[in-house]
Order: sequence, then structure tokens, then C-alpha cells
Amino acid sequence: MVFNWFRKQRVIAPTLKSRGEETSTAPRVDLGDMTPEVIPFLGQVAYFELAVFESLSRAVASAPNLRDKEGLTDAAGQVLAKHQGVVEELRKLKVDPADAMAPFAPAIDRFEQLTSGRDWYEMIFGVYLTAGFLDDFFTRLVGGLPKPMAKRLEVLLEPDKSADVIVAALKAGIEADPKLASRLALWGRRLIGDTQLVARSALHGSGNRKNDEERIEPVLTDLIAEHSRRMDGLGLTA
Amino acid sequence: MVFNWFRKQRVIAPTLKSRGEETSTAPRVDLGDMTPEVIPFLGQVAYFELAVFESLSRAVASAPNLRDKEGLTDAAGQVLAKHQGVVEELRKLKVDPADAMAPFAPAIDRFEQLTSGRDWYEMIFGVYLTAGFLDDFFTRLVGGLPKPMAKRLEVLLEPDKSADVIVAALKAGIEADPKLASRLALWGRRLIGDTQLVARSALHGSGNRKNDEERIEPVLTDLIAEHSRRMDGLGLTA
Repeated sequence: MVFNWFRKQRVIAPTLKSRGEETSTAPRVDLGDMTPEVIPFLGQVAYFELAVFESLSRAVASAPNLRDKEGLTDAAGQVLAKHQGVVEELRKLKVDPADAMAPFAPAIDRFEQLTSGRDWYEMIFGVYLTAGFLDDFFTRLVGGLPKPMAKRLEVLLEPDKSADVIVAALKAGIEADPKLASRLALWGRRLIGDTQLVARSALHGSGNRKNDEERIEPVLTDLIAEHSRRMDGLGLTA
Repeated sequence: MVFNWFRKQRVIAPTLKSRGEETSTAPRVDLGDMTPEVIPFLGQVAYFELAVFESLSRAVASAPNLRDKEGLTDAAGQVLAKHQGVVEELRKLKVDPADAMAPFAPAIDRFEQLTSGRDWYEMIFGVYLTAGFLDDFFTRLVGGLPKPMAKRLEVLLEPDKSADVIVAALKAGIEADPKLASRLALWGRRLIGDTQLVARSALHGSGNRKNDEERIEPVLTDLIAEHSRRMDGLGLTA
């Protein structure tokens, strides 16, 4: 992906805090002082949520029983609402959502393919970990958007309860078949690399790539810690 | 399917109107004086909407371009909202939605398989025709449910705008490839038989099957006329 969300002038003269300051004083490392380019940012988030929706729909269709199927429809609905909310923001800006999403489709499609897993459990675990990581990443960039939109997107992209259903299904699966745990642990460790690449891809093509990467590093460290917490919550070693 | 929505006492002593009276005076033939059994009715409708959602999700995933994909997500969201609304009614009755849906899953799964089509156009045309027909059928039975629920379901199952997106995509497809028209016309004529069977299946297993079938006949005639109008709207001979 050769897109860069960040406005050049902000990248050239960023209000950089030292890394030590950021990680020690703030409970959450934020990218609010980095200003993403609005339309590419919305386009990438919209397409990402659409891809997550497609993954969850596949998981609905292939659920092992009707109770899990029913639970996942809620999750799919919540992700679809995120997609639709971001599309609504693009429409407000008189931008065709398809045009805004198009540049991000190939890379995200490939990412979804790489992270779709070999069975239903890997599929839903993949959604849980990758969407958890990237929604969190996107939310930390929202602060740099124009104010009223930032407010709306913060609410929209908030972590939802869709994850609860997935966690419950994974726990039940691991309980029924303890061998699943080691397979999922391996899968979770594999996913984190590709997922970070999607976050980093937003910086590629920038004249100040090195500068951006330095600033994004503490955020990624923070997001990886969240990832480990998700693994731990299922009794898996990250 | 061996289920019968209709309460025996109402079927034994129905407030039957003559067929002539029904078709000549009412602009719309209704089944409001037939009282469906609440839980099986909700279970079948919930599972049917879930199956339509799954079909639309597949159509989202396999859309030929991003604009059609984006349009269909709206349609999928509207169908999902129908499913969730019906599930909500089951929860209000303290009924596990999975238990209520389970008896209807095999027949509806088979129906979805039979009507899924050979390509994207047949897939979305199938959803348009079968969901159009059966939503209409279900809506006509809603009048026989307990009042506040009937009111809520009437609003919920109302024809939505999801069809507009599908019609536009089909028209564009036919314009680009006129041969598609004759293929879709054939497909539409094939679908109507299986779709009627789903409607009729609600009567099977009843001690008064003959009686029910006589009463349902004018409704089916009316629904087939609607089906023909959908075909006509696309310039296809029903």
C-alpha cells in the first residue's frame, strides 16, 4: 500500500513528545497529535470493517451449531454498523465510499486471506485478535481528525460486546478439546505480525517514514500488550 | 417439515370468507383470521431471515465491484435487523431463539441451497424473489398474532429499500449483457415453485390440511401476482 494518511506538514513539524514521557505518564499512548488525512483514513477504516463483516458472515454461515450462529449474527451486526457509520461520514463529505475504499481493498483482502484460518475456531479467533488490534489502532488516530467527526467516530469505533460472544465460543471450544489451546496460541502469535503490518502500512510512501515509524512505535508496543491480554484471557501464551 | 403454525381450534372452526368475496372486495388478501402458533411462527421467520442474511452476505463477499458490494451491505443490514427483531420477540417470551429456530433449519437450509443460483446475478435475483414472496406471506399472517407483537412485527417485516439496490444491480447487469435476461427469466420461473412450497410447508402435519390449503390458495394467487410484477419490473416474462 502506498498511501499515507498523515498530512505532510504535520509530519514535517510534529509536536513530538519524548518516548519516555509518553509511555510513563499516559495510561494510554495516543496518536492524537498526528493528523490523519481524512478521506484515506475513512476509506481504509470503512474497508477494514467491511472485511471484518465478511469474515464474521462466513463464521455465521459455518458455525458449528445454531446457538453460536445466533450469537455471531449480533457481532456481525455491530461490525456492519461500524462500516455503515464510517461510510456515512464519507457521504457527508460528498465522497463516494467505493472510491475512498478502493485503494485499500487489495492489501486488506490479502490480509483477510492470510488471517482467515483453517477452521471455524481459527476464523473467529483471527477476527477477535486482528479486529481488536486494528480497531484500537484506528481509535487512537481518531483524535487527530476534525472535532465533531472525531467525537462521532470515537463512539462508533468503541470496543463492542461482539467480542464477548467470540470469547465464550472459544472458551467452550478449548474446554471441549484442550488440544485446541496450543493450536490457537500458535495462530495468535502468527497473526500479530501481519496485523502490525496493516497498521504500519499507513506510513508507507511517506517522505518522513522514519520519523512516523519512530512515533508509532510506542503505540504498537501498547497495542501488542493489549493483544497479549486477549491471549491471556483465553489462557493462551502470547 | 412437520410443523403447523395454526392453532387447531381456529382451523377447526375458521371464520372462513368465500373465495370470491376475498378476492373481489379486498385489495389485499389477508390471513389475519388465521392464528399462527406464536413460537413456531417466530422460529421459522427468524431462521428464514437469518438464511436470507447469509445469502446476502455471500453476495456481498462475491460482488463484482466495490459499488455493488457497498450497496448490498445495506440490504444485508436491513435483513439482519429483521432477524434480530424477531429474535427479540422470542427472548421477550423467554424462549431460546436457537431452540425455536432449530426445527426449521433443515428445510430452509435446503431451500437456500436450491435457490442460491449459479452466479452472482442468479444469487441476488433469488434473494429478491424468494425473500420478497415469503416476507409478504409472513406479513399477511402477522395479523393473527397477539396485538402488540403483531404491530411490532408489521413494522419490522415491512418491505424495505434493500430491494432497490438489488433491482438496480440486476438492471445494470441485463443492460451490459442482454443474454442475462432470458437466463434470469428462466431462473425466476423455476424459483416460484420451491418458494411456494416453503409457504405451504407451514400447513403440513395439520389434521385440517385440506381446509388450510383451501384458505391459503387465494393468498398464494395474490403473492404469485406480486412475483410476476417483480419479474415485469425487470422486463422479464414471469
